[in-house]
Formats: sequence, C-alpha cells, structure tokens
Amino acid sequence: MLDSRWFLEFTTEKEANLHSLEEVIHASQTKYQRLEILRIGSYGKSLILDGKMQSAEVDEFIYHEALVHPALITHGAPRSVLIAGGGEGATIREILRYPEIESVYMVDLDEEVVEACKKHMPEWHEGCFDDERVHVFYEDARGFIANSERKFDVIILDLPEPMEAGPAIMLYTQEFYRTVAEHLTDGGLMVTQATTIAPHNMNAFTIIHNTVSQIFSNVRGYWASVPSFYTPWGFVIASQSKDPKALTQEQIKERLDSLKSPLRFYNPEMHQGMFALPQYLKEALQRETRVNTDAEPISFY
Amino acid sequence: MLDSRWFLEFTTEKEANLHSLEEVIHASQTKYQRLEILRIGSYGKSLILDGKMQSAEVDEFIYHEALVHPALITHGAPRSVLIAGGGEGATIREILRYPEIESVYMVDLDEEVVEACKKHMPEWHEGCFDDERVHVFYEDARGFIANSERKFDVIILDLPEPMEAGPAIMLYTQEFYRTVAEHLTDGGLMVTQATTIAPHNMNAFTIIHNTVSQIFSNVRGYWASVPSFYTPWGFVIASQSKDPKALTQEQIKERLDSLKSPLRFYNPEMHQGMFALPQYLKEALQRETRVNTDAEPISFY
Amino acid sequence: MLDSRWFLEFTTEKEANLHSLEEVIHASQTKYQRLEILRIGSYGKSLILDGKMQSAEVDEFIYHEALVHPALITHGAPRSVLIAGGGEGATIREILRYPEIESVYMVDLDEEVVEACKKHMPEWHEGCFDDERVHVFYEDARGFIANSERKFDVIILDLPEPMEAGPAIMLYTQEFYRTVAEHLTDGGLMVTQATTIAPHNMNAFTIIHNTVSQIFSNVRGYWASVPSFYTPWGFVIASQSKDPKALTQEQIKERLDSLKSPLRFYNPEMHQGMFALPQYLKEALQRETRVNTDAEPISFY
Amino acid sequence: MLDSRWFLEFTTEKEANLHSLEEVIHASQTKYQRLEILRIGSYGKSLILDGKMQSAEVDEFIYHEALVHPALITHGAPRSVLIAGGGEGATIREILRYPEIESVYMVDLDEEVVEACKKHMPEWHEGCFDDERVHVFYEDARGFIANSERKFDVIILDLPEPMEAGPAIMLYTQEFYRTVAEHLTDGGLMVTQATTIAPHNMNAFTIIHNTVSQIFSNVRGYWASVPSFYTPWGFVIASQSKDPKALTQEQIKERLDSLKSPLRFYNPEMHQGMFALPQYLKEALQRETRVNTDAEPISFY
Repeated sequence: MLDSRWFLEFTTEKEANLHSLEEVIHASQTKYQRLEILRIGSYGKSLILDGKMQSAEVDEFIYHEALVHPALITHGAPRSVLIAGGGEGATIREILRYPEIESVYMVDLDEEVVEACKKHMPEWHEGCFDDERVHVFYEDARGFIANSERKFDVIILDLPEPMEAGPAIMLYTQEFYRTVAEHLTDGGLMVTQATTIAPHNMNAFTIIHNTVSQIFSNVRGYWASVPSFYTPWGFVIASQSKDPKALTQEQIKERLDSLKSPLRFYNPEMHQGMFALPQYLKEALQRETRVNTDAEPISFY
Repeated sequence: MLDSRWFLEFTTEKEANLHSLEEVIHASQTKYQRLEILRIGSYGKSLILDGKMQSAEVDEFIYHEALVHPALITHGAPRSVLIAGGGEGATIREILRYPEIESVYMVDLDEEVVEACKKHMPEWHEGCFDDERVHVFYEDARGFIANSERKFDVIILDLPEPMEAGPAIMLYTQEFYRTVAEHLTDGGLMVTQATTIAPHNMNAFTIIHNTVSQIFSNVRGYWASVPSFYTPWGFVIASQSKDPKALTQEQIKERLDSLKSPLRFYNPEMHQGMFALPQYLKEALQRETRVNTDAEPISFY
Repeated sequence: MLDSRWFLEFTTEKEANLHSLEEVIHASQTKYQRLEILRIGSYGKSLILDGKMQSAEVDEFIYHEALVHPALITHGAPRSVLIAGGGEGATIREILRYPEIESVYMVDLDEEVVEACKKHMPEWHEGCFDDERVHVFYEDARGFIANSERKFDVIILDLPEPMEAGPAIMLYTQEFYRTVAEHLTDGGLMVTQATTIAPHNMNAFTIIHNTVSQIFSNVRGYWASVPSFYTPWGFVIASQSKDPKALTQEQIKERLDSLKSPLRFYNPEMHQGMFALPQYLKEALQRETRVNTDAEPISFY
Repeated sequence: MLDSRWFLEFTTEKEANLHSLEEVIHASQTKYQRLEILRIGSYGKSLILDGKMQSAEVDEFIYHEALVHPALITHGAPRSVLIAGGGEGATIREILRYPEIESVYMVDLDEEVVEACKKHMPEWHEGCFDDERVHVFYEDARGFIANSERKFDVIILDLPEPMEAGPAIMLYTQEFYRTVAEHLTDGGLMVTQATTIAPHNMNAFTIIHNTVSQIFSNVRGYWASVPSFYTPWGFVIASQSKDPKALTQEQIKERLDSLKSPLRFYNPEMHQGMFALPQYLKEALQRETRVNTDAEPISFY
C-alpha cells in the first residue's frame, strides 16, 4: 500500500519529485518565504524553503563539506570566515572543525528560518550557534558585506537559487562579487554554490563562473553529487592568488589531519575528483561569454 | 499552465518522479517487460523498461562513456568486446570509437527492445548495429557466456537493476562473475553497472563490489552523475592484472587521441575523478562482507 | 506495477487528479487553447481543453442528456435549436433524436477543436455533423446571437468554465442572457451548464442562477452527477413561460416515446430527480444576491 | 506557488487524486489499519483509513444524511438502531435527531479509530458518544449481530469498501444479510452503503443490490453525490414490508418537522430524487444475476 502523504517539489515546469512525507516537523510563512521542515521517507529530515529542498538529513554533509573544505583547505590557515546565507548552521559546523578559526560571521536574511533550524535541526548545527566565535546577523548579505569594515579570509556564499523575485537574485552579480573581493584579506578566497551542472540545464553555472571570472584572477568550477538535489551540483571558488587545483593529495591530507573531527564526504582524492569537470562542461565554460549584472540579473527558472 | 501529460516513475516505494510527457514514441508489452520510448520535457527521448528510466537523450552519453571508456582505455588495445544487455546500441557506439576493435558481441534477452531502439533511437546507436564487426544475440547473457568458446578482452555488463523477478537478478552473483572471469583473455577486464552510490541506498553497490572482489584480484569502484538517474551512479571494474587507477593523465590522453571521434563526458581528469570515492563510500566498502550468490541473490528493491 | 504515463489535471490550486494515460490520440495548440484527445484508463477517450476535462467516453452521455433533454422535453415541440459551444457534436446528437427538429445552429469559437472531434471522436457526434439540418459557425457565440435575425425555440449554452482569460468568460453575464432571451421564440427556453454544485464551491452556480433570474421569469437549477467531472454538476434552465418541474412523469414518458432512439441516462424519474436540490443548495440560492455583469464578470478560479 | 504537501489517494489502479495537505492531525497504525486524520485544502478535516478517504468535513453531512434518513423516515417510529461501522459518530448524530430513539448500538472493529474520532473530530460526533442511549462495542459486526438476542428497528451498515483483505469483505454477503434480516423487528429496515454507481464501475453496486434482494422482499437502490468520494455513491435499503418510494413529500415533511434539529442535505424532494436512478443503472440492475456469498466474496478492487 502506497503512503498517503507526500512532499511534491516541482524542480522545473517540466519535472517534479514526490517523497513520502513521514512527519511535518514545522510549517510556517516567514516574512520572506514559506518555511517547512519535513521528515521524508527517502532523505529524512529536510529543510524546504518556498517548496524547494534546501538540505536533507541523509546527504547534507555532502553539500556542506563540498562547500566549505575546498576553500578552507586551500587557504591553509583561515582565521575569519563570513557566510552569506547558511541558515541551517551546518556550514558553521564544518568551519569550526578548523582549530585556527577565530571568528565566523553568518549573515542570513531570515531570522525565523535560523530559529527554526536551531530548534528542530540539531543534526545540522550540532550546537555551533552557541560557540562564542560565531556571530549571526539577520539582514541582507549584500548590504552587510558592502558596509563591513572587516575583511575575511574566506567568504562563503551559501545561498538559495537565483530565482526571480527570490531573496538571493542580487547575490550572483558581477557588482556583488566585486564587493566580496574587496572584503577578502590577502590570499583570501570566496566560494559560492552555483546551481546544477546537468548538461540540459547548465546555463546558470556557466554564467556564474564567467561572472566571477571578471573579478578574480583564479577561478575554478567544481561539483559534487548531492542525491537530494537530483542533479550534480556546481560550486565556483575564486581567489586573486590561490589555486585549489595546485594542492597535492599529501598537502590536503596533512591539513585534514589537523581538523578536530573526521569528515564523511571530503578526502584528498575527492578534492581532486571534484575539480575534474565533464568534457561537456569544460567546453561550455570555454564558450560562455555572458556576465551577470545588477542591471539584468539571471533567474534560474 | 502545467502540462497535462506526465511520466511517473516510482524509484522506490518512498520516492517518485514526474516528467512532462511530450510524446509517446512507442509503447508495448514485450515477452519480458513493458517497453516504452517517451519524449519527456526534462530529458528528451527516453527508454523506459517496466516503468524505470534506462537512458535519456540528454545524458545517455554520460552513462555510456562512463561504462565503456575506463575499461577500454585501461585495457590499452581491446580487440574483442562482449556486452551483456546494452539494447540501445550506445554501448556499441562507444566501443566502435576504438580503431583496433575487431568484434563486438552483444547479448540481450529482449529482441523487441533492440528492434524498437534500432527504429526509434538512432541518436543512441548511430547506425552501429550495421557495422559488420557487430554480432547481436537474443538470449540469456549468462547462458551465452557460460557456453561461449570464445574469450573477450573486455566484458561489459550493461544490465537492468537486480530486481526481484527482473530479468537481470542472476547477473550480479559470484557464480556469474566467475563465469565472466573465465571468458576474459589475459589482461582482460570486466565492468558492470552497479546501481546507485547514494549514502542512504548504497547496499547493492557495496555488495556487488565485494562479490566481484571474490573473483578478481584487482577491483575498483567508480561512479558518475547521470542526472536522469537522480542519484550518483556506481560501476565496478575488475581485472586479474590491470588497474585503471594506475594510468597517468598523459597515458589516457594519448589513448583518447587515437579514437575516431571526440567524447562528450570522459576526459583524462574525469577518469581520475570517477575513481575518487566519497569518504562514506570508502568506509562502507571496507566494512562490506556480504557476497551475492545464486542461492540468495540480492534484490535492489 | 503502476502505469508510467498519466494525465494530470489540477481542478483547483488545492486538488488534482491523475488518470493513467493509455493513448495520446491528438495533441495540438489551437489559436485559442491547448487541445488534447487522450484515452485514459478510468474514463476512456476524453477531450481536454487547456488541461481541463471536457467530456469522457464513459460518461459524456450523462452530461449531454442532462444538458439537452430537460429543455427539449419541457418545450414540447422544438423545431429550431441553437448551441453555443458544443464542439464534440454530442449535444447535436441528442437534439437530433427529436423528430420535429428542423434546424440546429452550432456556434463554436474554435474550428480546430471541432475538426479534431469530427475526426477522432465519432462516438460523440455519431455522424450528426453531416445532417443537413445542422449548421456550424466558427465565431464568438455572443456576437453571433446578438447579430442573428433568427429566433430559436431552445438555446443551449454548452460552454467551457467561466475562467479568467478563458474564451467563455463573457458568456455568463446578465447582458448576454438578455441577448439570449431576445432570440428565443415564444415559449422558448435556454439552458446553460452552470459549473459544480459541491458545497464548498457553489458560488459560481448560485451567481449564474441569480443572474439568469434577472432576465427570465421562470428559472430552475438542476444537476447531474458526471463522474469524470468529480463533483456534482449544475445546470440552469430558464423560460418566460414554461416550467420543467410542472411536467408529470407521464407527460415526460409520452414525449420520450416519440424519440428516434433510446437514452442511457435521462428518464422520467431522473427528470424529477435532477430538479431535487440538496437543502444546502436551496438555501444558498435563496441567499444569493450577486449578479454577474459585463463590467465585472465572475471567474470560476 | 503550489503547495509542498499533498494527500495522494489511489482510488483504483488507474486513477488517483491529490489534495493539498494543510495539517496532519493524527497518523498511526492501528491493530487493523493505517489511520490518518488530515486537514486538506479542498475538503477540510478528513478521516483516511488505509489511504482511502472515509469522510470529509465539508461534505460528510451529505453521506451521513443520505445513509440514515431514508431508512429512519421510512420506518416512521424507530426506537432502536444498530450501526455496523460508523466510527466517526456522525451516523449516531443523525439518528439522535429522532426524538423517539431509545437506543443506538454501534459495533466498530477498531477502537483506536473511534477514540481518534472522538478526540479529533467533534464536528462529526457532536458529543453524541456521551448520550446515555448510545452503546459502543468494539468487535466484528458480523459476529455481534449473529450472537445478538436483541432485534433492531433499523440496522445501518456504515462500512468500508469490500476490499480484498479489508476488514469489511465479509459484510456484503448473502449469508450476512440473512443474519441482518433475522435481527430486524417487524417492519424493520436495513440500509448499507453500496459503493459507487459510476457507469464504468458499478459492478459492486449491482451485485450488492442483487444479493440483498435474495433476502428481502422490498429492496431499493438509491444514491447521493458526495464530492469527496469523486463519483456518485450508492446505497441499498431493504425491508420485508416497507417501501421508501411509497412515501409522499407531505409525509416526509411531517416526519422531518418532528426532528430536533434541521438537516443540511436531505429534504422531501431530495428523498424522491435519490431514488431516481439513471437509465443505465436501472438496466444494469435488471441484468444483474450475481449473488455475493461467503464462499466467494466480491472485492471492490
């Protein structure tokens, strides 16, 4: 007998996914978006914003490790990190594994989301919001960074998709990346989630990659497979001086050994594996000439 | 306005996917299975057997290149290849890119599927069924191999999932792999598709890997992300003497340069990237002790 | 094993229906709407316009008999009938059962729909488009009636739902009903489909009923259960002089006996049964004061 | 933006319905069945057993009034009533409107369902479980009636569908109806819900009707349209001496006037309307010769 209750997510106008719905842990409308924390049969406890899967219990570690470690390992000695977005707290969790971290700033628009994650999703944050090095701000990340007098060793853009009318549409433009670059310390890196790299739907990725390339001298695309996102997921990492592909497996291993706790996805081989791009994507990146600007921001949908 | 017509696929009892259905190109019940060739909005023309996506126009090249090239590149000079399954003809297509190929045997249970693919899916086979080096047999692959007096440089197991009551359930057992090993030439390799490696559902992969390891001295798991399969997809490659991880990028590049036509997914970096396994999977493989046998074959569902 | 192919119809934002999809008989975009003729597992061949079920093989006779016979039986001797809409031809089919019929005018906006019905849905029209008494016009029904110099014994409004931006939104207003009234012969009747009478969704029905009541002195609501419409379906019949509830079962039987062919849904008891309204609906009709006007036409959704 | 959470009900293998899921009020597995009380966007609070809609807030009154009043009005002076099933308490609620009622016995298999309804569905029972004339028993209705030394003026079979392996499969057989007949007082009536009368799916109805006719001399089928059941719903009422179709509207009105509270669906016209059967159904009843027996009970699905 099939289950009665289902979570239905339209990922595009032409594709949707159904997951059996075991428990509605939280459902509300915040000031900015529809917020749901659901337990689904396939992926366990899951954060859903405006109907879109953000992260799921069984594989959030893949996304968060892939987002955080290439940048922090490449940096070598990150003391200050800023996160734009990152409401679940799992990005902070990964950052705090580095013993040299002195401060983590997190700027998320929606306090209600963060409060719900704090309350209902301890598997994600593991109490890290209580760490005294962590400072959380509830405001628009773009304004926060622009107005910040501090610079950061790493800036992590852990954002929702660039959807029309979505809260993150202005956080993928050339102008924003310039602001980010101006708030990195020497040798600093930024990394952004960069949507799917599926061959039928890779426009947003290649545009983001090309846009970041207008501002930074060293830009790399990489990717990981997060099953609850359905399609392989892209990231773009950038720096004026450092190259994550230049690290040897031995260097990565040495840095990993200094972490306070073991990882579940990332390892030295995986680091290199993530930077191996399918041929179709390498060619698409070479062809891409579009630049995303404040004047005409791209929308994923 | 949403589309009216949809392709609904239950991938497990707890998860299903909906794709807009643009055209029903073919639908029939064969002697063995329900056969459909559908054009869907997300992935284009798609082969569906017993309701399960087999391969789709926009990303079949990822699956077929990932299945074929690690084995053929590692072999170095493959002249004879046997395919178990492979009805679409795309596996043959990839094999025929190697100029040294002298014969390709393909054994598929279901002639009606192959005939429908020949007729409706030229994008997959590109006419390769007409190549005089290609020999197609319609029978059970296990019996065919057991009874074969020939040996092959590479045996490719391009099979449906090991589902209870499915036609391929007996093609993932230790006894079958022994038969395969006995029909490889010296220095030969086998490769099998090996189901998903998603962290919540990787049992079949680790069991297949461990089962193959009972027979072959050199076994490697690897994977690729085929979006229309939803979750990252595993493969197991095995040989008594050769190791695909031992190849340098330069060696791979040199062999690729000899192919008759360029690839869209596989490249030297990707080769190495595919063999980089997530930490969770490495650990699961180390823990795995189950062996799949004729007496109690695993069922994926 | 569940079917792979489904017809998905959202009837409201909060409810949808899935029917297994056996065959796509026709699919196109006309000048006015998306047109599909699908064979579905539950209801057989079905006409779908803009994603909404219009009529289905297994129960279209219920809708069409309920639409036509109360008016024609009540009239007693209908010689001329005008149909607004009615593309499938089944409304004509029911009318032609009356031996006294001399002319049937049908005005449908969308010639492509009528042509597709003629070709693919002979079960509906049974060849009646070829009857020499039948005259089909492809234009807006409102303009056609307004400009007509002829009057009709019965005018049948066999229309799509009054949806915003839909082609029929202006065919449910007081001004239109006045035009209809002016084109009836003495003793003439009009009847319109009038959407669902489900208790949670009966606004459109009561508004239509009240709007018709502004123009006609004798107005009756009635209903039938057409399973493929999911909810009980309302109709409004009106005349300046005749009352369908005044007929005795004997009178109905006598008139029915004169028809050329037997009916499958309507019978003397059913005539009276259809005019029996649930208490909640009687009370809602008594409370209703809204009138639908050209200035602010109602939209069903 | 579509809702995220949905209730999915397969009504047959070829048809399913989706309702937006606003709240999971209760979900559990009882000793006998999967029990859910959900609030859905279309129909409000709803009782779901084994994934099948049982009754919904916005239209349960239609079902329960249609089930109870034809029998009780026809009886004329019912003092004792037995209900088989009826867990929600709404059947009791309708019975207690009759001032002459002295005792109501309700026999429901599943105490957990009744307790959940008591707690979460006061709109259905309106406190009637607390009435001292009401006696609830948790056991199999068939055994209870067979062993009962009491007789009843009316026996109401308010049962789940006769599904294979379902708890009610043996409560639609000739042998059971004989037991029921033996436990009616002189002039007593029984009534049973009798599944859909949709023209493509009316087998169960006609078989039940014919089976009841083996035991009772006066049997009438009737129906009502309960939107949340999707298709028109049938009932069979039976007596050795009384005929609900013999009542005049005046008689019905007089009896209704004696009730303690007004009804929302049933009225004198509606009584007659419910007994008007579509022509296709009259003919199907005439053709039906199958009798449902303990030896080979019908299954609706």
